[in-house]
Amino acid sequence: MSHQDDALVVFTPSGRRGRFPLGTPLLEAARALGVDIDSVCGGRGLCGRCQVDLCEGSFTKHGVESSANHLSLKSDTEWAWEKRRGALREGRRLSCSSQLLGDVLIDVPASSQVHRQIVRKRAEVLDIELDPIVRLYFVQVQQPDLHVPASDLRRLKAALEYEWHFSELKTDIRVVQQLQDALRRGDWGVTVAIHDDRRIIAVWPGFQERIFGMAVDVGSTTIAAHLCNLQTGEVVASAGRMNPQIRYGEDLMSRVSYIMMNPGGETVMTRVVREALCELASELASEAGVAVEAIIEAVFVGNPIMQSLVFGINPVELGGAPFALATDEAIDGLWATEIDLAIHPNARVYALPCIAGHVGADTAGAILSETPYLGEEMMLLVDVGTNAEIVLGNRHRLLAASSPTGPAFEGAQISCGQRAAPGAIERVRIDRQTLEPRYKVIGCERWSDEPGFEAEIAGHGVTGVCGSGIIEVIAEMFLAGVINAEGVIQGSLTERSPRVEADGRTFRYVLHRDGNRTLAITQGDIRAIQLAKAALYAGIRLLMEHYGTDHVDRIRLAGAFGAHIDVSYAMVLGLIPDCDLEHVTSAGNAAGTGGRIALLSRKARREIEAVVRRVEKLETATEPRFQEHFVAAMAIPHRSDVFARLAEHVDLPPRVARDAPSQGRAARRRRRRVDSSPLT
Amino acid sequence: MSHQDDALVVFTPSGRRGRFPLGTPLLEAARALGVDIDSVCGGRGLCGRCQVDLCEGSFTKHGVESSANHLSLKSDTEWAWEKRRGALREGRRLSCSSQLLGDVLIDVPASSQVHRQIVRKRAEVLDIELDPIVRLYFVQVQQPDLHVPASDLRRLKAALEYEWHFSELKTDIRVVQQLQDALRRGDWGVTVAIHDDRRIIAVWPGFQERIFGMAVDVGSTTIAAHLCNLQTGEVVASAGRMNPQIRYGEDLMSRVSYIMMNPGGETVMTRVVREALCELASELASEAGVAVEAIIEAVFVGNPIMQSLVFGINPVELGGAPFALATDEAIDGLWATEIDLAIHPNARVYALPCIAGHVGADTAGAILSETPYLGEEMMLLVDVGTNAEIVLGNRHRLLAASSPTGPAFEGAQISCGQRAAPGAIERVRIDRQTLEPRYKVIGCERWSDEPGFEAEIAGHGVTGVCGSGIIEVIAEMFLAGVINAEGVIQGSLTERSPRVEADGRTFRYVLHRDGNRTLAITQGDIRAIQLAKAALYAGIRLLMEHYGTDHVDRIRLAGAFGAHIDVSYAMVLGLIPDCDLEHVTSAGNAAGTGGRIALLSRKARREIEAVVRRVEKLETATEPRFQEHFVAAMAIPHRSDVFARLAEHVDLPPRVARDAPSQGRAARRRRRRVDSSPLT
Repeated sequence: MSHQDDALVVFTPSGRRGRFPLGTPLLEAARALGVDIDSVCGGRGLCGRCQVDLCEGSFTKHGVESSANHLSLKSDTEWAWEKRRGALREGRRLSCSSQLLGDVLIDVPASSQVHRQIVRKRAEVLDIELDPIVRLYFVQVQQPDLHVPASDLRRLKAALEYEWHFSELKTDIRVVQQLQDALRRGDWGVTVAIHDDRRIIAVWPGFQERIFGMAVDVGSTTIAAHLCNLQTGEVVASAGRMNPQIRYGEDLMSRVSYIMMNPGGETVMTRVVREALCELASELASEAGVAVEAIIEAVFVGNPIMQSLVFGINPVELGGAPFALATDEAIDGLWATEIDLAIHPNARVYALPCIAGHVGADTAGAILSETPYLGEEMMLLVDVGTNAEIVLGNRHRLLAASSPTGPAFEGAQISCGQRAAPGAIERVRIDRQTLEPRYKVIGCERWSDEPGFEAEIAGHGVTGVCGSGIIEVIAEMFLAGVINAEGVIQGSLTERSPRVEADGRTFRYVLHRDGNRTLAITQGDIRAIQLAKAALYAGIRLLMEHYGTDHVDRIRLAGAFGAHIDVSYAMVLGLIPDCDLEHVTSAGNAAGTGGRIALLSRKARREIEAVVRRVEKLETATEPRFQEHFVAAMAIPHRSDVFARLAEHVDLPPRVARDAPSQGRAARRRRRRVDSSPLT
Repeated sequence: MSHQDDALVVFTPSGRRGRFPLGTPLLEAARALGVDIDSVCGGRGLCGRCQVDLCEGSFTKHGVESSANHLSLKSDTEWAWEKRRGALREGRRLSCSSQLLGDVLIDVPASSQVHRQIVRKRAEVLDIELDPIVRLYFVQVQQPDLHVPASDLRRLKAALEYEWHFSELKTDIRVVQQLQDALRRGDWGVTVAIHDDRRIIAVWPGFQERIFGMAVDVGSTTIAAHLCNLQTGEVVASAGRMNPQIRYGEDLMSRVSYIMMNPGGETVMTRVVREALCELASELASEAGVAVEAIIEAVFVGNPIMQSLVFGINPVELGGAPFALATDEAIDGLWATEIDLAIHPNARVYALPCIAGHVGADTAGAILSETPYLGEEMMLLVDVGTNAEIVLGNRHRLLAASSPTGPAFEGAQISCGQRAAPGAIERVRIDRQTLEPRYKVIGCERWSDEPGFEAEIAGHGVTGVCGSGIIEVIAEMFLAGVINAEGVIQGSLTERSPRVEADGRTFRYVLHRDGNRTLAITQGDIRAIQLAKAALYAGIRLLMEHYGTDHVDRIRLAGAFGAHIDVSYAMVLGLIPDCDLEHVTSAGNAAGTGGRIALLSRKARREIEAVVRRVEKLETATEPRFQEHFVAAMAIPHRSDVFARLAEHVDLPPRVARDAPSQGRAARRRRRRVDSSPLT
């Protein structure tokens, strides 16, 4: 033990150090040194957020002999906390209850730091600090005094200023309405939620342990939501459900048409999606075992039409040129009740900004998640749905566009197409010699030529081909020579294989046949995929051209489609430009991840709001060069672009130079639809 | 005409002058010179707010030869405006449509100034500038362009920045929801309402002429409201109605008791008062011939309990010591929908701050109206209701208290008392010799001893005595010697006059008797008034003592009571301290006037918010000296205080020095009630 009146304390990982009088609580020493230690209860031993680890031993690097008996014994408060919440591990202490009795080395674990890191998925970019816009603070408020008629609110603010150094706080009227009851029920101790360091938005009697936030990705087909603990960043529940608007139209354009034809339809669609959001919130809360009122913040990402409908904005202007958004700003600090979201009655809502009429907050979310704006490498970020949102660039410039791929990649417009569900073919290989296929079906681990396959699929059979299966089968047909670079099924092969059959004036390739059904790839299916992939590739090319680059360093495929396709096949078909295959990866639900980052980090919100303003938007529908790129991209993989890196991994058929007139017609046909509406 | 390329323009009353190229519109010249001329439409000849007067002649003082033909002829726009809105008088022009062709002297009338004056009632204080927190701006917004995907909101803001120099504007989501439709219906011209130069809170297609605000004084008995044109400050409609909460209790304390005994009762009372506010809003709009949606702002004043109930705050804490307010801040910028007020759906609400548990926003309103904080003179501001709110001070210090006068001044607790209504006696004179009374009745111009009185009152008869009548009859009884300084009816007078009768063990004075009824002032009535006036006077005395002053320079009596009583009688009875009678005047509905000032002036809001923070609050219930002052004030006019100035006008009976034991008892009885609740 030190025989002096003060002792040395060294905090790691910050390395901050200082001498303090014996008896100083560690939390107080940490604050005096500016060491980042969390606390909600203000050092009352209630919240347990200020835990630290005492490191025992002789640390010559820090010049400190640290010993367990250099801290005060556990206080009653600390014992009470452990009794309530579980014993702390050896050496771990509540810093507010541990007083300095001698020199110590104290480690502040990440979980006790206010500004701990939210880990981003890629190692090469900076992590984001946990910095939720709503934080809890416990205070003990002075009781009212007949002789000093300061209101309850004024005394609450005085306590917040004294204990937490807040000044000039604003207060929701709803908090004022609840304040007197909370103060008296909490025996003058209350926990308040403060939004953006500026406004008291909620109050609870006594010590409130936890608050939560939900991040919601509102897609046209599905709505996915995550519930996060706002103090730890941890995802505590996830839930998803179909977007109930589907009953008014499968895709975005048909929903806008519904509104155009049914005045007031926008109100109905707003109502049903909000109802689904409420149900999701309940589901999340119930899964996490918390009250729905513990959710104090909700963040939304969605395409422009979904975002509009959630926020009660009629999306009809997005149904036709010039596709004007009502707003391209983030929606910030809105009361959840304004969108009828039944969470905490004073909760706030944030929505990421939309970028343009076709490039929504979901794309903003993906950009925030993937951070192309931080690096030097040329990143291509693609989210394939009914439209493909494309972002290209790096820290110097960022370009974005939407391309009207249509629903072919999702299995629609394909004769044997279906949604990804048990029974759907998802992987395909075609023997280059015999042209016989083998495949894998969702819900079954074996390939179709493996023993036991039939038995295993007996429950559902083979019912159709999902998006990734369609990409694979057509790419394999190309690699096996069943179709040529123009996508034409080679009728001459009927002699070589029973898999190739006449189908009216064209041909088809039979992938599967059993007593119930025949699943075949028709010439029409191939044309549909060609149109879709040409639209996607042309959009990408347009952005590359505008940027002035002829290559991309990295391709990230967002969304469900990106998660399931084999990227090499996508490249064989020419959906995406040539790139080192190792650098072509799925980004998962990047939009949703971006929403989650925005939920947990105020700084991230300001970051994406600023980045979005810098994004250069291209309107594919009116770009003169789009049509030219589109025609060239109808060929497989492309009429002229070279796929040198792909060729290192895949045996591509030899290139033939020919301009198929049928492609020109198809492109023109496609063009007309694109002009009339890129949302189709 | 000038033969130069430019011309001189001189603006009065500012005296600003400058030379401008020929052809410059006057509005543009005024702006360049910083001359205050209003405009909503931005110089498009739509709003007519920029009218100026051309002064013809030779003005040597200004060095200008001003002539009508030195301005351009009326343009088509100007003619169209006159056709629509009525011809302008000779010499008056729209400054936006009048171009400079030679030297001119231009007078800007007050009605065209943005910052014109709101006249306060007293000449000696500064006028307040018209500066409503919500103002209209018309802008022409760029149409959307497929190649520049800026949202409608972004282009609106760009227009507001370009035309009106607003930057960093925030926007209500409700405006975003309405924006696209408004822009298209207005052919890209819209009028927006901007709140506090910071936030767009409403949008209308095309040019919106006018917006209105309502100022509401929510009293426990009546609710009074005024509708003001926010651009001119003019009151365009007034309306009042009973507070429907009366069915739950006549006075404040009985309403709080109702809530204590009926949990949830606060919700009911909030609902009924809000319903009444909606009805008032409709009535005001209908009286002014405008849509209720044209009301974009509402300002509230009320006592703490009424204010709490309007804003959904349970007032039970105000029902007992320590009488803690939920908030003593102004309520600012709240959506009217938060209090279910059906005016413009995006309208905002402002409430003046409450001062203490018994001193409400109505007192803050009265302070704002009467401005004791501006002058050197010692002002006493009294609002008599069931409680009396008392404010004393000047620019150096301001003190406030509430004193529990009870409802006697309003005619309650008085045997023959009634509300001020036709048939009520309101004025009384008693012959010093015969002790015969004469009186005036509400609804009749004649005194009771004048010919034709009987015929004129035949419709309603003489039904009771209202508050001012009670003050007068008791004061006259004192002056005529019917009661002594202790308030005791002199039984010995039964011999001198049939008006004095035995009434059990005490006596009474018969004021009126007819076939239907006898109206008499009993000893109990006099005691009730003594208790009430002693409470009021004691409160005033306490404030004077705390300030350290023995006199007041001016007394302002606010409210209905103050408007109807004869101040000399109030002073004879000793309700108020001695003061030059010419300086004792009614302040009318000062609370409501304060609300109206706050409605029309942002600066006034900031002013009263700051003043209220400086007010020193005294709690009469616990002030040790209150009881002593109370006992001394039971005597008429007072046991010891001298009323020298009053005596110059009124023959006061000679003072007798005696401490009536009965007064001591009464005071102690009163004291107990005061301790348990000053709201009684």
